[in-house]
Order: sequence, then structure tokens, then C-alpha cells
Amino acid sequence: MNIPDGLLTNDSSFQKTIEFIGYIDKLKSVIRQNGLHDDSRAENTAEHSWHAALSALLLSPYANFPVNIDKVSQMLLIHDLIEIEAGDTFVYNEEALALQEQAEQKAAQVVFGQLPDSRGEELKALWEEFETRQTPEAKFAKAIDRFLPLYSNFHNKGYSWRIHNVSQNQVRHICQIIEDGSVILWDLTEKMIDDAVEQGFLKL
Amino acid sequence: MNIPDGLLTNDSSFQKTIEFIGYIDKLKSVIRQNGLHDDSRAENTAEHSWHAALSALLLSPYANFPVNIDKVSQMLLIHDLIEIEAGDTFVYNEEALALQEQAEQKAAQVVFGQLPDSRGEELKALWEEFETRQTPEAKFAKAIDRFLPLYSNFHNKGYSWRIHNVSQNQVRHICQIIEDGSVILWDLTEKMIDDAVEQGFLKL
Repeated sequence: MNIPDGLLTNDSSFQKTIEFIGYIDKLKSVIRQNGLHDDSRAENTAEHSWHAALSALLLSPYANFPVNIDKVSQMLLIHDLIEIEAGDTFVYNEEALALQEQAEQKAAQVVFGQLPDSRGEELKALWEEFETRQTPEAKFAKAIDRFLPLYSNFHNKGYSWRIHNVSQNQVRHICQIIEDGSVILWDLTEKMIDDAVEQGFLKL
Repeated sequence: MNIPDGLLTNDSSFQKTIEFIGYIDKLKSVIRQNGLHDDSRAENTAEHSWHAALSALLLSPYANFPVNIDKVSQMLLIHDLIEIEAGDTFVYNEEALALQEQAEQKAAQVVFGQLPDSRGEELKALWEEFETRQTPEAKFAKAIDRFLPLYSNFHNKGYSWRIHNVSQNQVRHICQIIEDGSVILWDLTEKMIDDAVEQGFLKL
């Protein structure tokens, strides 16, 4: 629902921004494969984005290199906005991931195109930086984004691993990029994977 | 559930931080009075915190004064963490709000006390700054925090106003502090209140 005509000021940048804030409410209805730690339900992408941005702030001393943590936080606040248009793709579904890339580029146009010009371009560039994972900030942000679902699977005994019959090798492969952002977090990740296998909720 | 002993490194600050990141997952299960824009369900506090932090970034050009937007964003990421212990209090329930203050102070000790010393103190101070609403950052953050529930009520035709039989005078009174953070946002708020009364989903 758009704001009724004439309800706002004639500042079109402000109006676009307000409408965008209404539009992104939809991210609360994008459901991920991942579950809450307490196993009560699947997680949505908005609450995941909050968890990621705050976790990055808390874990910033453990990045492999100095990072601009405010940039990391902004990156994580917007990193999944394109899912409003493209939906969530499970990281262990390789076929879907290949198709997803093109869809996500289109989605990025639709999503960020709704913001006033320079702001839209700025956030789209930040999303691309995250996706291409070349800068220290993007490497650290991706590490956090990969660690969190593993951590919740560790708590809820493999909520998404069980559903999708995921193996420890797949988890190791997908999570390996954590090492590029934080060696200490990757060390923990490996221990969690070993423990999950030992406890029997992650198959060999 | 805590991490099993011996699973982590012997870096106790890192271990505390990781456990805190697990603990705050509970914020996704704190349910607010407010509904999603599409009227499908009540909002939880984690996704609200994401919406608030990102909305502040987007609306920062419309603050009444220059603000350190990274600080505002951090403030909004952590502003409701104490609800994990104290629960959400509806802003229109004045009796509950009076009792809530003490409960929230205790909750802040419990919540932030779980972080490594200096980090816990730093975030507790940031939360107190938000609550006392004296600095430019806190005024702007509070304005965003008050605007968002009004905006969703505007979209979903008074989801929380109807349940609690709230009047336009109560809404004006509670939302008035938006003006201290952003005059243009307050101007919009007043127009939305007028429109809600006219459309019949906010009583006189």
C-alpha cells in the first residue's frame, strides 16, 4: 500500500525513503531454511539481518584484519534485501544457487531502484561489495553471515541440516569462507562441526 | 543451551561473546503489540530492531541536527535487548510503564552483564543514553522507534490501536517526541494521525 497522494510533503526524496521503509517490511515475511536456536520455528530474513549486524559489532575484535565495522554493520543490514524480490536460496542447493545469481541481480535493480538516486546506487554498490567478497569488510560480513546458521544448527540439533539431508563435507565446504574473515571463528566452526557429527545430528 | 565445556578456545572474552550471540536469539521470540504492515501477524522485537536501525540510516538526512549515524544504528540494534528479560511494554499502558522502569534497569544488568566487562559497560551506557534521550543521537533514534509502529498502524489500519482501544490524543501524546528528532517526520506523523481518524481506524 502506498501513502495516499498528497499526504506527504512535496520532498520526493523523503517520500521515496518513507515508501521504501514501508516496502522493506516484507523482509519479515521471507522465511529461511534455518531455525531459531530454540527450535520453535523457521527464522525470517529481517530478524536474521538484525542478528548478523549486531553479531558483527560484537565480534569485530576477532576479524583477521582491521575492518570499518560501521560499514560491515550497514552491509549486513541490507545484505538480504534483494530476497524481498528473489526469495531465500538455501546455500546447500547448488543448482538453485547458479540460477539465483541472475535473479538476484534483477532483484537488486528492483529493490535499490526504489530509493532516491544516489542513495539507491550507494546501497546497491554496498550489496555488490558484500557479494563479491574482496574487501576486508565484505570478507568479515560474509564470515558472520555463514557462521550464524551453523551456530543455530548447533543449538537446535541440525534444524535445516536434517530437512535437507546435509553432510559434514557440505557444511565444511560452505563454511570454509569463514576463515577468510576470522580465523578464530573458523576454528570454532570446525569444532562445532566435529561435535555435531559426534552427537549424531550431522551425517558424515 | 551453553556451548559444551572445552569446545571453545580458552579466550574467555571470545567465549562470552559467542554465548551472548546465542543468548540474544531469544529476542526473535519477544512479541510486540504492533503488527506487520500486511496485517499477517504481530511483530517480534528482533525484526523491529532491524527495521529501526536500517530506517535510521535511510532517514538520517532528515534529522533536526547532524547525528553520528553509526552510533544511532548501534543504539537501535541494542535498544530493546533488555526485553529478553523484561518483556515488551505497550507504550500506551501508563501503569505498566511506571513499573517497567525498575524492571528494565534490573534487566539491563542481567543482559549486558553477560558480555566481557568493557563491552558490556559500553553497550549498557549506549542503552541508557537512548533511554534518557538527551543527546542528538538518542533523540533521533527515539524518533525512529516511535515512528515505525505508527507507520505500521497506518498500513494495517490500526492493528495495535484497535486491540487496545487507543485514541488519537494518546497517539499524539506518545508520538510527540518524534518532533525532537525530526520535524519533517513529525509533520508526516501528524498527517498520518489525521488521515487515520478520517478513515475511521483511530478513534477521536
